[in-house]
Amino acid sequence: MSAYDALMAFTRETTALSSVAGRLGWDQETMMPRGAADQRGEEIAALESVLHARRTDPRMGDWLAAAEQEQQDDVARAQLRHIRRSYERASKVPAALAAEIARVTSVSQGVWADARAQNDFAAFAPTLENVIRLRREEGAALAQGGDVYDALLSDYEPGTTGAELEAMFGALRPELSSLRAAVLDAAPPARLTGSFDESAQMQLTHKLALTFGYDMNRGRVDKAVHPFSSGSGHDVRITTRTSETDPFNCFYSTIHEVGHACYEQNINPDYLLTPLGQGVSMGVHESQSRIYENQLGRSRAFTGWLYAQMRDAFGDFGIPDEDSFYATVNRVNDGYIRTEADELQYNLHVLLRFDLERALISGDLTVGDLEAAWNDRFAADFGFAVDKPSNGVLQDVHWSVGLFGYFPTYSLGNVYAGCLHEALRASVPDLDDQLAQGDTTAATGWLAASVQTHGGLFEPRDVITRACGSAPSEAPLLAYLKEKFSGIYGL
Amino acid sequence: MSAYDALMAFTRETTALSSVAGRLGWDQETMMPRGAADQRGEEIAALESVLHARRTDPRMGDWLAAAEQEQQDDVARAQLRHIRRSYERASKVPAALAAEIARVTSVSQGVWADARAQNDFAAFAPTLENVIRLRREEGAALAQGGDVYDALLSDYEPGTTGAELEAMFGALRPELSSLRAAVLDAAPPARLTGSFDESAQMQLTHKLALTFGYDMNRGRVDKAVHPFSSGSGHDVRITTRTSETDPFNCFYSTIHEVGHACYEQNINPDYLLTPLGQGVSMGVHESQSRIYENQLGRSRAFTGWLYAQMRDAFGDFGIPDEDSFYATVNRVNDGYIRTEADELQYNLHVLLRFDLERALISGDLTVGDLEAAWNDRFAADFGFAVDKPSNGVLQDVHWSVGLFGYFPTYSLGNVYAGCLHEALRASVPDLDDQLAQGDTTAATGWLAASVQTHGGLFEPRDVITRACGSAPSEAPLLAYLKEKFSGIYGL
Repeated sequence: MSAYDALMAFTRETTALSSVAGRLGWDQETMMPRGAADQRGEEIAALESVLHARRTDPRMGDWLAAAEQEQQDDVARAQLRHIRRSYERASKVPAALAAEIARVTSVSQGVWADARAQNDFAAFAPTLENVIRLRREEGAALAQGGDVYDALLSDYEPGTTGAELEAMFGALRPELSSLRAAVLDAAPPARLTGSFDESAQMQLTHKLALTFGYDMNRGRVDKAVHPFSSGSGHDVRITTRTSETDPFNCFYSTIHEVGHACYEQNINPDYLLTPLGQGVSMGVHESQSRIYENQLGRSRAFTGWLYAQMRDAFGDFGIPDEDSFYATVNRVNDGYIRTEADELQYNLHVLLRFDLERALISGDLTVGDLEAAWNDRFAADFGFAVDKPSNGVLQDVHWSVGLFGYFPTYSLGNVYAGCLHEALRASVPDLDDQLAQGDTTAATGWLAASVQTHGGLFEPRDVITRACGSAPSEAPLLAYLKEKFSGIYGL
Repeated sequence: MSAYDALMAFTRETTALSSVAGRLGWDQETMMPRGAADQRGEEIAALESVLHARRTDPRMGDWLAAAEQEQQDDVARAQLRHIRRSYERASKVPAALAAEIARVTSVSQGVWADARAQNDFAAFAPTLENVIRLRREEGAALAQGGDVYDALLSDYEPGTTGAELEAMFGALRPELSSLRAAVLDAAPPARLTGSFDESAQMQLTHKLALTFGYDMNRGRVDKAVHPFSSGSGHDVRITTRTSETDPFNCFYSTIHEVGHACYEQNINPDYLLTPLGQGVSMGVHESQSRIYENQLGRSRAFTGWLYAQMRDAFGDFGIPDEDSFYATVNRVNDGYIRTEADELQYNLHVLLRFDLERALISGDLTVGDLEAAWNDRFAADFGFAVDKPSNGVLQDVHWSVGLFGYFPTYSLGNVYAGCLHEALRASVPDLDDQLAQGDTTAATGWLAASVQTHGGLFEPRDVITRACGSAPSEAPLLAYLKEKFSGIYGL
């Protein structure tokens, strides 16, 4: 057996175990009895301990070194690139530090949740300081003299740097701010009002999932507190939620998660249970969920079809025609909360977090100054003041569990979605005619063939470049948003 | 750290991983998308490979030897007894043989299912021969010169021998046969007829589960093709099924699985995720499910309460009063299928399998002669001929996956339930008054304190002896069945 074959056999087993851990996560959010939480924590810890031992197994280093000397094809070279990165990552971090991070972040989320409920940032600050100290230490071990934030970022978006993102986001922010101001000065479309039967919402959500190409034979839809997609290959499950007064939350959460899930389901099946067999980065993943949700799902053409579906499901719900419905779907509202933000303002929320977390990791910003920094920046970008920490610095779970470098991938995903949408329109000139019939096959087929099938074969940035024929840029997203919202608001 | 502490830390992690494997089994039967089967097979194989490596880890032998020399309390000695048994079991079987058994039994179930669908025993015979050959080889490795069947039996019922069971079952068989003949000569009670709304069945099933003490905060009820209980400690889930024409199937399957589940939920929480933290044997497990289902659930007193519940749920369903309902619940019917058999005939089905499988393992019976042997024995015990293999030798999955030594634990469980029921009646004189109110707390509380809480602390036979104050015997079960069915059938 070649070193490569031995390495892949071992890695395939590790990937299968990691898939089991993912399934436990799904179970925990959907099915697990409440009283099982502590026991489950111990079960997951046991599995993570096995996974850690395998990822740092000294044989991995030997196999890798030998396999890198063997003659390999493109696929094998890509597998080796992923395995090398993961092995180096696991090996560079001292075991004691990894264990300490696991220990601290297993309780810090609870401290954050309590502090948020009490609207008391000071109660969370010491815990956050500890988490940041540990993640900086980890980042320094990974960076080995390089940029610490970039080292953390590469867990979620390999091949991207904070400086690159800063340039891209710096070009976005003023344009988004002025577009936002103009839109909020204009007359707003009607809001959705009334009551929408929740089981009818779930029926339509199933139809939407199928419409966007989700394969129910290799997936399932359940309700959960937070919508998410989980799993890879032939077992990719999504969750959604319903609210009697807000069916859009259900429908667009579902379409968003279907974008994530279809990415996983459409990866070349040859890559199943290997490092290539999953979405290549958080940014590329988010590009799929966002283009499904926004550029396709919130388009004038598709909302025309959805309007008829909702009339069938709920009768007359007070919106007189397709054009009004399109405007209502895309209504821009003032608000504090990132996860509730519309397509126009969403990135302003993310850019704020990116700048603050980079400063926290570099040491330019202390936790003691964080709440004030958040509130100042929010007022500058949104034009009104944060009223309480749960609507401000305490609103997101990410930092509490040590996710630094994760937030910017949301906006990078939107930028990528803008690029892909431009290329898709060029490739499928009659896209709107199809979407108006509720037919997404040309669009989702193009994304499957151009992006999804590759899994981890190419570096994230290269996936987008190959699909679009040019390097990623924020320009297509900006042009799209300006055209769309100028149209809706008559600017 | 003492050797015992090191051993227990390692064992606790192994037990947690084993619990994860059990959860995957639950998922597979309830939630998993169909298309995920192959991927899941690979995930389970990876986890089983980790478990096997841990169970045969050479450090286990060293820790065990050292811990057995240390001073230990009763609980620790019981833990060591279980760990020693499991380690010896895993170590005695050559790895190549274990792998071959896993490989063969992973496909043999499919061959059996096809043969059963075709009613063609010959199509299954070569596969069964192979499974038996491998399990005999495994049994010989475990027995080391002792009885091969006893070695296989000890996987499910440690401390019991085939000879002991033969004596016990030999005393049961003629008595059950003659009671059966007398009952079937008498005038039968009415059958249940009509249609019973399936969602109302599920509502009443939830109520029944709570009535028998199932803790929903540490469990859940789902539908599945086959009812089962899965998990231990704080996460014990059950499944049930519904049939529009047969609500008893739903209700008594549920009560049966609740018996299994309560055993697991009521084990001393100090034993969580250790070898003591699960039911001690299949026989003791079955004693709990059967006493919940039969001696309690099918008693005159409890069926009186259930009759009122069913009238509330379904209205008038054609049974005029409590006494008629009790007789209908306990109606004895001719039939081929073990899993559909009533309380009186069930053990005759099991005894048949026990005698045949012992002869298969000893070599006194060949696979070539098995179908004829089955049919002869069935005609002798039940008085009519098997019409087709799917109603005879092909009806059960057990042998196809190598489960030899498992069947007798069903009847042993019934014998144990008979003993426990006698002791319970002595301990709770007004039991029937309580059951007639739908109150099982005294009964289930007595079982929890006398049997369930101990988990694996005592040997299976000792659990029953301690609870009842005398050694297990088939006499109480026989006396109970004679009295019950003589009463119902006016013998």
